[in-house]
Amino acid sequence: MAILCSEATCKAAGTFTTNQIKSAPVILSQRHMSKGRAQAIVVNAGCANACVGEQGLADAVEMAKLTAEKLDISLDKVLAASTGVIGVPLPMDKIRAGIPKIKPTNEGGHDFCRAIMTTDTRPKEIAVQVDSKEGKFTVGGVAKGAGMIHPNMATILCFIATDALVSADLLPAALHTAVDGSFNMISIDGDTSPSDCTFLLANGLAANEPIDFDNGEAFQEALNAVCTHLAKSIARDGEGATKLIEVTVEGAEDEVWARQAARAVASSPLVKAAIHGNDPNWGRIVAALGRSGARVREERLDVYLNEVCVMKQGSPSLFNKADMISALGNTDNVFIKLCLNLGDGRATGWGCDLSEGYVRINSAYTT
Amino acid sequence: MAILCSEATCKAAGTFTTNQIKSAPVILSQRHMSKGRAQAIVVNAGCANACVGEQGLADAVEMAKLTAEKLDISLDKVLAASTGVIGVPLPMDKIRAGIPKIKPTNEGGHDFCRAIMTTDTRPKEIAVQVDSKEGKFTVGGVAKGAGMIHPNMATILCFIATDALVSADLLPAALHTAVDGSFNMISIDGDTSPSDCTFLLANGLAANEPIDFDNGEAFQEALNAVCTHLAKSIARDGEGATKLIEVTVEGAEDEVWARQAARAVASSPLVKAAIHGNDPNWGRIVAALGRSGARVREERLDVYLNEVCVMKQGSPSLFNKADMISALGNTDNVFIKLCLNLGDGRATGWGCDLSEGYVRINSAYTT
Repeated sequence: MAILCSEATCKAAGTFTTNQIKSAPVILSQRHMSKGRAQAIVVNAGCANACVGEQGLADAVEMAKLTAEKLDISLDKVLAASTGVIGVPLPMDKIRAGIPKIKPTNEGGHDFCRAIMTTDTRPKEIAVQVDSKEGKFTVGGVAKGAGMIHPNMATILCFIATDALVSADLLPAALHTAVDGSFNMISIDGDTSPSDCTFLLANGLAANEPIDFDNGEAFQEALNAVCTHLAKSIARDGEGATKLIEVTVEGAEDEVWARQAARAVASSPLVKAAIHGNDPNWGRIVAALGRSGARVREERLDVYLNEVCVMKQGSPSLFNKADMISALGNTDNVFIKLCLNLGDGRATGWGCDLSEGYVRINSAYTT
Repeated sequence: MAILCSEATCKAAGTFTTNQIKSAPVILSQRHMSKGRAQAIVVNAGCANACVGEQGLADAVEMAKLTAEKLDISLDKVLAASTGVIGVPLPMDKIRAGIPKIKPTNEGGHDFCRAIMTTDTRPKEIAVQVDSKEGKFTVGGVAKGAGMIHPNMATILCFIATDALVSADLLPAALHTAVDGSFNMISIDGDTSPSDCTFLLANGLAANEPIDFDNGEAFQEALNAVCTHLAKSIARDGEGATKLIEVTVEGAEDEVWARQAARAVASSPLVKAAIHGNDPNWGRIVAALGRSGARVREERLDVYLNEVCVMKQGSPSLFNKADMISALGNTDNVFIKLCLNLGDGRATGWGCDLSEGYVRINSAYTT
């Protein structure tokens, strides 16, 4: 368990799972965030508090209430998140005993990050300091997630905090932009969790020149950098993963189709398994593109694997297969580029390889 | 390699992959089938003849032409299909040497079925004899497929032949109905192959009372039985699979959403991995349903695993977990039922468990 809290009330924005089955803390956080402000977030790992009937919301409310009492703030300024097994009630005895023991400190970011891990093997954290013409401010974030990852307008658990002074209108818009280009472009297994959420709290204590739509560029850039770093960290640490796969699509009819195509390739089990085996079986990349929905004209299509052209204008390109196998074996970053040569649409997505380890982790998760 | 041929010209219908990248034999077969008739199909396994540029169609035409010459029929009555690695040209030397050696016999169905296998571990074949008020006839079929299976309006390679006398209008309609309820409801890995196709040839030699829309019930039933048997055989023989998973959705808003929901659950990697580990982690079933797009009201949802209720009206049901784990371990047929209690939509889909074997088979397919 962990609590993230701010010295002052924050402007708050969030993105939440699009799964119709929502965990109780997601429902609670959406309600409490409706006023666009918050001061603390309480999180537990190990139990998702989802699919447990009415008990779920009662437990989420109690968890938030205990946090509000501890911090001496009002209940509706507390957000909540839970991650873990679905269909099991929160162990409220542990929650009641645990919350009073938590001691918030200014140096607790790393501990917070570790507290929310489940099947993650590495913590995911980053902070960037910005010195812009609007003044100095910091944007920091932590995230967790290694399975049930295929976000759609939301993601995993991600907590971002900033001391920047940002307008209440810009905050959610900036978060959506950043999440769309980062968390919404990763996939580990095609499953979208009922617990997915991203929180952004901004307390304004940097006292910079107020940031709004007309001067939000540096803030957006910092937020994008934080979200992209965390999203890539999650993809790289996918359950059982040994490699990060980056898929760039260029020349699609438009950006929407470019995104769709990049995600289809990055999440194809056959592409992921081939990459795991250092197998340059690029036909699977093309097959995944072909079913993505994006318009493709085979005779215009160029495909690159780790910067080596494997298909040119729809025909196989000659490449040294032995060299490619050895190059794939010597890197944990695999780059796939698809040039559709149809328009200006461009997008990048991230995934990971599919290993026996993924199956092992997930075939006995609750037993 | 194998050739399927009929003594007489057949009425012919087919369904083909919706992948925008189509193999050359798919393009050839679609052209030759445009007149609704055919007499032979030539098939090879090991090379898909896809993504090889203009050479692909030239090779497919030559393969069909050699078959037409051998059988002394016109080229446009020959259909073709290929399955195997994408991006590698057909080994035409072997094809040219092989076709003359093939000797069609009336008893060759099983050999045909074995000839088209790739990573399949078991042949998939069935024939049903029908004694209806329209007379006696037979419907037989064979299929192959164990990976890159997520058909959409088409499937894997499937060849169905019948001696029934059926109208040219009913034939494609009956095939679409049968394929929609069978092959289009299975998924092994979410990847749709550029080579998918289903062929139905009807030569009319049973000399039954002509079958059309008004008296097509017995024929449709036989065709459904053949397709459902073959589709379930494919799902059960999925790469690395040890169990068949059958997902039935009831009470959805309509049939379209019921189908979507059944397929989402049957193809969820997390559900598949849990089943592999005999882990009754039903929360993953509910999570997959929730992201399927079908409308769900959590408080109305009932979920059954192997006929044991695990969730009732949105809350966990008490069940004996040890008994369930042992029951899952003792069967290779797992039944999942989801009652949405919203309407009359109903559908059944099939998949298989996700094992380390799937990853092993697919991580070194070409290396």
